Amino acid sequence: MRPSNSVRTFTAENTQVAFPLGGIGTGNVSVGARGDLRDWEIFNHPGKGALLPNTFFALRAQTGDKPAISRVLEGPVQPPHNLSHGYHPWSAAGLPRVTGARFSGEYPFAHIDFVDPALPVQMQLEAFTPLVPLDPDKSGLPCAIFTYTLTNTSSEAVQLTIAGSLFNPVGGVAFDAFGNITAGGTGLNTNDFREEGDLRGLRLHSEQYAPDGLLYGDMSLATTHPEVTVKRAWLRGAWYDFLQEFWDDFSSDGLLTDLGYDSPSDMGKSDTCTLGLVDTLAPGEQKAYRFLLTWFFPNRTNSWDNNPGAPLVRNHYAGQFSSSWDVARYVVEHTQDLEEETRRFHIALFTSTLPAYVLDALSANIVPLRSTTCFWLEDGRFFGFEGCFDTAGCCEGSCTHVWNYAQTLAYLFPSLEREMRRIEFVVETGPSGYMFFRTHQTFGSRFVWGWGDQEPEAAVDGQMGSILRAYREWLLSGDRAWLEAIWPGVKRAIAYAATHWDADRDNVLDGSQHNTYDIEFYGPNPLCTIYYLAALRAVEELARVMGEAELEEMARGAFEAGSRRADELLWNGEYFVQRLEDVNAHKYQHGEGCLSDQLLGQLYARILGLGDLLPEEHVRSAIGSVFAHNFKRGFRDHVNCQRSYVLNDEAGLLLCTWPRGGRPGLPFVYSDEVWTGIEYQVAAHLIYEGLVEEGLQIVKAVRDRHDGVRRNPWDEVECGHHYARSMSSWALLLALSGFHYDAARASMAFAPGIPKEDFRCFFSAGTGWGSFEQHRHGPRVQSADLMLEWGHLQLQQLALQPLSRANTVHVDLNGISLAARLHHSGGAVVVEFKQPLDLSAGDRLSIWLAGSRDPLSMNK
Amino acid sequence: MRPSNSVRTFTAENTQVAFPLGGIGTGNVSVGARGDLRDWEIFNHPGKGALLPNTFFALRAQTGDKPAISRVLEGPVQPPHNLSHGYHPWSAAGLPRVTGARFSGEYPFAHIDFVDPALPVQMQLEAFTPLVPLDPDKSGLPCAIFTYTLTNTSSEAVQLTIAGSLFNPVGGVAFDAFGNITAGGTGLNTNDFREEGDLRGLRLHSEQYAPDGLLYGDMSLATTHPEVTVKRAWLRGAWYDFLQEFWDDFSSDGLLTDLGYDSPSDMGKSDTCTLGLVDTLAPGEQKAYRFLLTWFFPNRTNSWDNNPGAPLVRNHYAGQFSSSWDVARYVVEHTQDLEEETRRFHIALFTSTLPAYVLDALSANIVPLRSTTCFWLEDGRFFGFEGCFDTAGCCEGSCTHVWNYAQTLAYLFPSLEREMRRIEFVVETGPSGYMFFRTHQTFGSRFVWGWGDQEPEAAVDGQMGSILRAYREWLLSGDRAWLEAIWPGVKRAIAYAATHWDADRDNVLDGSQHNTYDIEFYGPNPLCTIYYLAALRAVEELARVMGEAELEEMARGAFEAGSRRADELLWNGEYFVQRLEDVNAHKYQHGEGCLSDQLLGQLYARILGLGDLLPEEHVRSAIGSVFAHNFKRGFRDHVNCQRSYVLNDEAGLLLCTWPRGGRPGLPFVYSDEVWTGIEYQVAAHLIYEGLVEEGLQIVKAVRDRHDGVRRNPWDEVECGHHYARSMSSWALLLALSGFHYDAARASMAFAPGIPKEDFRCFFSAGTGWGSFEQHRHGPRVQSADLMLEWGHLQLQQLALQPLSRANTVHVDLNGISLAARLHHSGGAVVVEFKQPLDLSAGDRLSIWLAGSRDPLSMNK
Repeated sequence: MRPSNSVRTFTAENTQVAFPLGGIGTGNVSVGARGDLRDWEIFNHPGKGALLPNTFFALRAQTGDKPAISRVLEGPVQPPHNLSHGYHPWSAAGLPRVTGARFSGEYPFAHIDFVDPALPVQMQLEAFTPLVPLDPDKSGLPCAIFTYTLTNTSSEAVQLTIAGSLFNPVGGVAFDAFGNITAGGTGLNTNDFREEGDLRGLRLHSEQYAPDGLLYGDMSLATTHPEVTVKRAWLRGAWYDFLQEFWDDFSSDGLLTDLGYDSPSDMGKSDTCTLGLVDTLAPGEQKAYRFLLTWFFPNRTNSWDNNPGAPLVRNHYAGQFSSSWDVARYVVEHTQDLEEETRRFHIALFTSTLPAYVLDALSANIVPLRSTTCFWLEDGRFFGFEGCFDTAGCCEGSCTHVWNYAQTLAYLFPSLEREMRRIEFVVETGPSGYMFFRTHQTFGSRFVWGWGDQEPEAAVDGQMGSILRAYREWLLSGDRAWLEAIWPGVKRAIAYAATHWDADRDNVLDGSQHNTYDIEFYGPNPLCTIYYLAALRAVEELARVMGEAELEEMARGAFEAGSRRADELLWNGEYFVQRLEDVNAHKYQHGEGCLSDQLLGQLYARILGLGDLLPEEHVRSAIGSVFAHNFKRGFRDHVNCQRSYVLNDEAGLLLCTWPRGGRPGLPFVYSDEVWTGIEYQVAAHLIYEGLVEEGLQIVKAVRDRHDGVRRNPWDEVECGHHYARSMSSWALLLALSGFHYDAARASMAFAPGIPKEDFRCFFSAGTGWGSFEQHRHGPRVQSADLMLEWGHLQLQQLALQPLSRANTVHVDLNGISLAARLHHSGGAVVVEFKQPLDLSAGDRLSIWLAGSRDPLSMNK
Repeated sequence: MRPSNSVRTFTAENTQVAFPLGGIGTGNVSVGARGDLRDWEIFNHPGKGALLPNTFFALRAQTGDKPAISRVLEGPVQPPHNLSHGYHPWSAAGLPRVTGARFSGEYPFAHIDFVDPALPVQMQLEAFTPLVPLDPDKSGLPCAIFTYTLTNTSSEAVQLTIAGSLFNPVGGVAFDAFGNITAGGTGLNTNDFREEGDLRGLRLHSEQYAPDGLLYGDMSLATTHPEVTVKRAWLRGAWYDFLQEFWDDFSSDGLLTDLGYDSPSDMGKSDTCTLGLVDTLAPGEQKAYRFLLTWFFPNRTNSWDNNPGAPLVRNHYAGQFSSSWDVARYVVEHTQDLEEETRRFHIALFTSTLPAYVLDALSANIVPLRSTTCFWLEDGRFFGFEGCFDTAGCCEGSCTHVWNYAQTLAYLFPSLEREMRRIEFVVETGPSGYMFFRTHQTFGSRFVWGWGDQEPEAAVDGQMGSILRAYREWLLSGDRAWLEAIWPGVKRAIAYAATHWDADRDNVLDGSQHNTYDIEFYGPNPLCTIYYLAALRAVEELARVMGEAELEEMARGAFEAGSRRADELLWNGEYFVQRLEDVNAHKYQHGEGCLSDQLLGQLYARILGLGDLLPEEHVRSAIGSVFAHNFKRGFRDHVNCQRSYVLNDEAGLLLCTWPRGGRPGLPFVYSDEVWTGIEYQVAAHLIYEGLVEEGLQIVKAVRDRHDGVRRNPWDEVECGHHYARSMSSWALLLALSGFHYDAARASMAFAPGIPKEDFRCFFSAGTGWGSFEQHRHGPRVQSADLMLEWGHLQLQQLALQPLSRANTVHVDLNGISLAARLHHSGGAVVVEFKQPLDLSAGDRLSIWLAGSRDPLSMNK
């Protein structure tokens, strides 16, 4: 990866940078801004702050007969230096290291330029894990690829060794209060050197655990570089002998001495191993050196917790591979495809005209779906926590009301989203249409939460959102078999809303409405009711697909009545409010408050093409009011007795404010907080309603807060790290591009926001992904290009926004003209192809629209 | 306290600042640079990072009818903001707070200037715990005094409330992974409002624990301010109601509503209480508002560990008081004395001509003796760990070889040091003279360390140092009864050295010599042998005191033979080295290395006036070599495979280097590290040998590293926080002032280092302390003034360094002339008083020395 011009760079001082490597459902290890490996989360649970001892890369370089220079390939250790016993030797903090590191990250690629004037080489590191949208298997490899590119900047040949050292953690690493490595679960650990065709390296395993044990697993550190030097186990000595012996051995001649240990480690102990890549670089020569880190920890408990002793299930990757070495072999054999397809995605996403901070928001929030927030089982079931504690998943159950906000997974890996809907509607929705908003039944366990022994209340927003998301998944896939499987659940779920949350049958919800703020709203309120209106519209559309005209009509009727009634009840002339006689009769209401989430259902309607749920001008006014009242620049005077995510001079969007008074004594919990997941959904909605500048301001504020000093740019926290709600950021791309796709109808649309005249962005459409471009050429000609980069795509029609009055169209596919006709629909100009197109990866569809009969000559 | 001009100031960005309050053996709570209370360590164990929820000070100020302004009295919360769930409400991070804080600390006083342009008042906080040298009881109060001084800077009266909120932690606070306060040991907790004479406030206790229970105890938050407002318990509500109700109540009118709870908290729960001081300030008016925080957690286990279930012993303060309220009453009744005496000490220490960073090094390293590194039992026994883990003491047993370096306690609280010697020589020294270097027998337990089941080796340096320290304690106290008690142990201990560590009877130690590097040196080596030579000299002096002429002579003879032999064996022409045929025959030796500690015995000889142990020019060359070779400016190229305490561009003194080669393959552990305790001892020794500039460079380097961003200026870490060895810094004062006192002889000396011509410093001399000043007045006149600030002092003679040839003396005491005569001894001029003086606090002894008969007229 060559970083884009506009991408942010970070230095060692940006201590919060932790860029996660690892695939879907595999866990992660992160790269810090110094080039350090941190947060080892490959053992089926989060591990914020978890370090592996003795684990680092190092370089030894020697020019001619000059003294060799050896350096740890990490930037300077940063303050505070406040450990009770200093830095332990296993941290290698006392070893010479490069003087500087400049980090940039364009997920899934991390790039570091190392700086050290004393060295005769320039050095870069690229680290990534393959990520290919729409291909979860290729994107779910338990591996990380590290490529060091070195250029000899001296006038003599440079002899070099790049060494990767790795502690064998199988069984579990533990430290005593002094920082010494102490008896964890390790023992009988062995590091073997293996060579198999082009692949050579070390496999780190243990003889202590059986393959069906929770702690069973192995790791490999391998390369395809031909000349290697290996130390299978560092000195098993006293005190700090291990590091002294290694460093002396490495720095003396760059060739490692194997110490000849042939027995595995003692119980409670483990070994560190080192793989060195040896080479000579001619003056001016540049060469890449690749390390492959793979892991295989196949087993996890059959539950949301990692309780040892519970029955085990296997990770999805465990069904594909038999060991980390097997993974390494696969990656080496498929490197070209994996790397090339990942780069194609990276280029398609980042060579865009969207602002850098938008690309940042889009790409950084792919992380949650490849973080320990999610897991993926061998049988295909895919699950998500809400987020992560430092060492465990947080808030189990693929919580519907949180995942509601997420769009990223649906567009990049729609098959996994369909699986989530299947679990929700087939497993978790009861005969009455009551839906558990946390999936426990699928694990054979019971959902108990807050209400003690009673059945938990259903979550209105979660349940309505699942219906909307079912429609989204249908649009993207056109998968009829899947829809038929979930359809009975969908119907029961909407019926439950009508019978349980609409006591007075006015199609506006009332009663006790549990929701994503972990409390119940009472009486008519915009969040729940507008969600309901959107769900009614989705049911109407799905009923049409399923040929259930009666239901279609019922849904339409309920929607229309509900929409009118909601507007009467909730509209305050500026935005929508909760109607309660006494806002303090129940704790935790919002009443007259301006709720940032009030129009979340309408945002879904925009994304899914369901139209206005309420009078258009009211919608526009309301979302504008959310921005006007709730977007705050500076929090020094803000009173927040709840959790704090934004501080001091930062900017952010509050969940609720009371610009006209009426704040309850104890307003709903979280009302005074700022959540990135809501900021993105509001920003996207502002953009949809034409308030583009306002939307972008919010996005910029979020990303500015994640500056690597205050927060990790690749970890948006709410109730946990890598919080699922932050995946609402993908809605920004949908809003800014106006992208819409209906697979069953083979109908696609774009309506670019900024800049309309020269626009380029990524799109992902269920079966294929690529880039879309639109340009204005003079006053009467515009062009649009659809480049399919991966997969295939059925296309019958493509809707565009006219930049001027277009009345002629010219279409070609890969340079060959196609017949097409034009019609106008709403504000869009629709290009209808004579024959349905079946685009394949590499295809380029070009469209010229003009106000004259000869657009091409117009352009000259 | 008004901070000295030269003192460093810190802002909120100096996140590592944690200034400990609390007395000897009482535990601590620290004040951060923001004015926050942190590191609650009052529960008989360390608690780095331990916070009490809901615990902060806040101000509400209202000018006339203008809207009131309410602020938490803490500076801005600092990055990183990386908590998995944001800042919990109990942290109050979301409340408005003052915009800035400027912190300075001159131990024992912390001072903060708060800044907030929106407020109609200026605000300062002073926080301290009484500290009166030589009076451990007054310096061992479990309390912290917070004084907020407010000045009305507006032109109208300001109504104000300053509120201190405190969570009742009795039983133990715990948090769940969300940060919620969860069931720890709390339960049946109650906060009572009390009023007793001038004293009023809240007592926080629990009905759950019996007075003899490990977790039993209470705290009080009190004031003598007449008008208070009180909330005994914050709202016992759901979610975050507690903070919302408190803040709304407080900020609405500054008067708190007691919620009327009359039952103690439920099991597993506790309450927060608030004490508000209410007042009105006239325009321009300034007033001080004082909060008194006291605690009483009397019980700890009768061991070095805090194992629940073990038999309990009581803290020293538990013998003086019956509850925290009792402490508060005592402090209020004795405030004037306690405060005035503490200020006198502060002024005496800080109104000095010594460089600010030296004063910083002296005062900041008083902290260990008032930190959780030490504890003090009801029966008078005083103990020290080496330092502290984050939550427990680290390395038990008043470890002789570490405490060897410490001087601070001996000079400030010599009675406690005598108690440590008593335990060492009476309890821990066996019939053979073998001394346990960690005191376990005193607790009835067994010392097992490293060597498994065998009896541990005795530590040469520890044992010789204890002998030297016995002599130091004798000099400072002249306490004959104490000396007689320990004398048999001292004699056995020196005999043990001669028989066990000098196989060839050449008076130079050999054999296996365990020492402070946690390994054994073999063969003749400077650390152990020079220590032994110093101990022989101390025994010679003590034998003279005890009238044991034969022993005196034996010691003298052994010293003289040993000195000659050591110089022959160890001197390499530049410094002293270890003599070994094969330095790699044993692991962990230093051989030809230049050891920073090589002359530690000689430093003791300087401090105690024992003279040169080896040829003077060799000593001077050796200590100069330590500086030249071991003081390193910049650690980027340093290879350290051990623990790291100094990094990047910092400067520091290495424990050992090999400037002439000969570095062993595995040199002694710690050789590549940097320890402040050794840096100070070497700095002091350099100063003693006239290499003042070199010594000061080292001191400055240490204190520069402790800049509040990288490290806490009030916590020097080695193998633990508040490491005992850092108390070697007091030797800087001894070296820079040339202070020496022999109580039995009533003989005192000063030999100021810098600047000689205008010098002022603090001294502490066993029974009294004060200031010493020396001035040059023109070419032939000098004056010296001794101000006794506290206690009393026997003085028969006072030795000074002549600034020119002095042949006349004029002495007066408080302006009244005294008869005295002059003689010269060595380089010093000795003033011998005709009558032995018995100085009392407040006395000023003035001495004029001149080369003429009329010094006073010379001065005109």
